[in-house]
Amino acid sequence: MSLGRDYAGQECALASALELIGERWTLLLVRDAFYGVRRYSDFLAHVGAPRAVLAERLQSLVDAGVFERRPYQDSPPRDEYVLTEMGVALWPAVYTLAQWGERYLSSAGPRRIFAHVTCGSPLDPLGMCSSCGMVVAPADVEVRPGPGTSGDGHGNAVSQALRLPHRLLQPLLPPG
Amino acid sequence: MSLGRDYAGQECALASALELIGERWTLLLVRDAFYGVRRYSDFLAHVGAPRAVLAERLQSLVDAGVFERRPYQDSPPRDEYVLTEMGVALWPAVYTLAQWGERYLSSAGPRRIFAHVTCGSPLDPLGMCSSCGMVVAPADVEVRPGPGTSGDGHGNAVSQALRLPHRLLQPLLPPG
Repeated sequence: MSLGRDYAGQECALASALELIGERWTLLLVRDAFYGVRRYSDFLAHVGAPRAVLAERLQSLVDAGVFERRPYQDSPPRDEYVLTEMGVALWPAVYTLAQWGERYLSSAGPRRIFAHVTCGSPLDPLGMCSSCGMVVAPADVEVRPGPGTSGDGHGNAVSQALRLPHRLLQPLLPPG
Repeated sequence: MSLGRDYAGQECALASALELIGERWTLLLVRDAFYGVRRYSDFLAHVGAPRAVLAERLQSLVDAGVFERRPYQDSPPRDEYVLTEMGVALWPAVYTLAQWGERYLSSAGPRRIFAHVTCGSPLDPLGMCSSCGMVVAPADVEVRPGPGTSGDGHGNAVSQALRLPHRLLQPLLPPG
């Protein structure tokens, strides 16, 4: 689906980006991949997209070069989905958009806290360490629940695992 | 339209943000507003969305608090759409996503160059001035065409105006 002649052409990088990752659910799958979700069944349980939509979105992310598909089991054959370097480079966009949501749409305070693993200090709204002043790569970021997260839970394993601090990009759930 | 129980709830700031600005066209309207597009007819000519869709998206941005509607003419009555403080705060997300598009989806080089008005230096991929090292507010950013923009043009006034350097948030086109 094209966004139209003007924006789909050479003129606008934002439109090109949205052509790849602007579809409903797509950016949420990218975000789950930063959390360390890798398997179809876990994306399915957490994001809640219909099965056919999820399969199509995962495939489109592979086709776009944002996700890489890696076999993790032979019998039955199963693949996992991992962010490529191009996918990891979406971190500033995903992070700053989520921070905007925290600031303007979360009355009870931030729902997730992102901190620099090395020093434990929270990231600022641009993703820089509030102590070191460094731009922090997502592999060096830890996510933990903030005060805006209510205690009432979702039964899926992803939501439960995210109640504990977790380093981004590391697998969130044990294999199997 | 809801993204589903998990993400629509209190758990995810990114999903909350996408509920407001994740619809097709919406982020392109926000971007045009950073360029200084303010009038319905100019959004229409540049973005190329169908009329009914455009009107609905502009209204939803007003309802969400991202755009403010301001009368600019009495007879016939006409309003313009201007980013609120909440809307201007989307700059880091819009900018970093566009930069990702420039980096990975523009083989001919950047289509737009963003520079710090005060010193003329280009912004880095996070939106900081490459000379001063400061985070630059969008009101202090100038946009100009980059080498990735081909010369062949679109006939609309917005595309033509964007062939010259322009300070963000300042009206792009003369009234009338």
